[in-house]
Amino acid sequence: MALETLADAFYHELCDIYHAEKQLTKALPKMAKHATNPQLAEAFEMHLAETQEQVLRVEAAFADTGKAPKAKKCEAMAGLLEEATSVLEEDAEPGVLDALLICAAQKVEHYEIATYGTLCTWAQQLGYSEAKSLLDSIMAEEEAADAKITKLSRVINKQAKVRA
Amino acid sequence: MALETLADAFYHELCDIYHAEKQLTKALPKMAKHATNPQLAEAFEMHLAETQEQVLRVEAAFADTGKAPKAKKCEAMAGLLEEATSVLEEDAEPGVLDALLICAAQKVEHYEIATYGTLCTWAQQLGYSEAKSLLDSIMAEEEAADAKITKLSRVINKQAKVRA
Repeated sequence: MALETLADAFYHELCDIYHAEKQLTKALPKMAKHATNPQLAEAFEMHLAETQEQVLRVEAAFADTGKAPKAKKCEAMAGLLEEATSVLEEDAEPGVLDALLICAAQKVEHYEIATYGTLCTWAQQLGYSEAKSLLDSIMAEEEAADAKITKLSRVINKQAKVRA
Repeated sequence: MALETLADAFYHELCDIYHAEKQLTKALPKMAKHATNPQLAEAFEMHLAETQEQVLRVEAAFADTGKAPKAKKCEAMAGLLEEATSVLEEDAEPGVLDALLICAAQKVEHYEIATYGTLCTWAQQLGYSEAKSLLDSIMAEEEAADAKITKLSRVINKQAKVRA
């Protein structure tokens, strides 16, 4: 049986978020490059540095499972990032592009928050104390990143032309 | 210019969530059918009825834009649901399957919460009062659905065998 225990489910989801974070490190430079608001570009660059470091922490969280780190293609993150980067190909007014990039980034953050929320709960139940501590720290960063970008959106949305 | 104003961005995102909700009405019956915990199956069935009704409210929210409702393929929801339904094909122990279904459902709810959050903010800014009211009501339901399933997960996670 492939998924016989909660430990198997934990490993399954950890492989998923490991791939998701790796994918995100490839998309964030594009998002930073195309963001027109300098604060937004800086926020994406900072989150890239944070994400690169999170990949290492997710990798370290595998230790408690006794299995090797494995990246399993995360279809959800692939879809989220396809949406985020497809916006860059549209012929968009700068303020509107920034508003749409923020929307895409918030969806990504929410995906991560949902996943880490589950992983933290399961790690606790499994007695994976090292993984729990690592994943808790990432969860806190994702929540902070979401709050930061939401705050920034209040300024940026106002810069977008409301109607033609 | 395809995305010249915030009104264009709003329409773009509304077309996305319209498709996403429609996709969800196709996946929830499968999730309900395979859930082994009767309370979880019931929660999915109730959320199906809610989602079918939300599709109509999203459709009605288009009125303020002055444009016809259009479903634009939502790649993110496609990825989220591919993940949710791929779990059903795995050889999983019933309690573990339920835990993974809850995890998938929470990711879906978070996707919707992020999207409706942005849409409500933009509707307010655009003076789309009817759309704002409709989307606010859906947002409240999504948050309630997420809270309900999180509560249920506390019972269901305990039913999953922790380790082999």
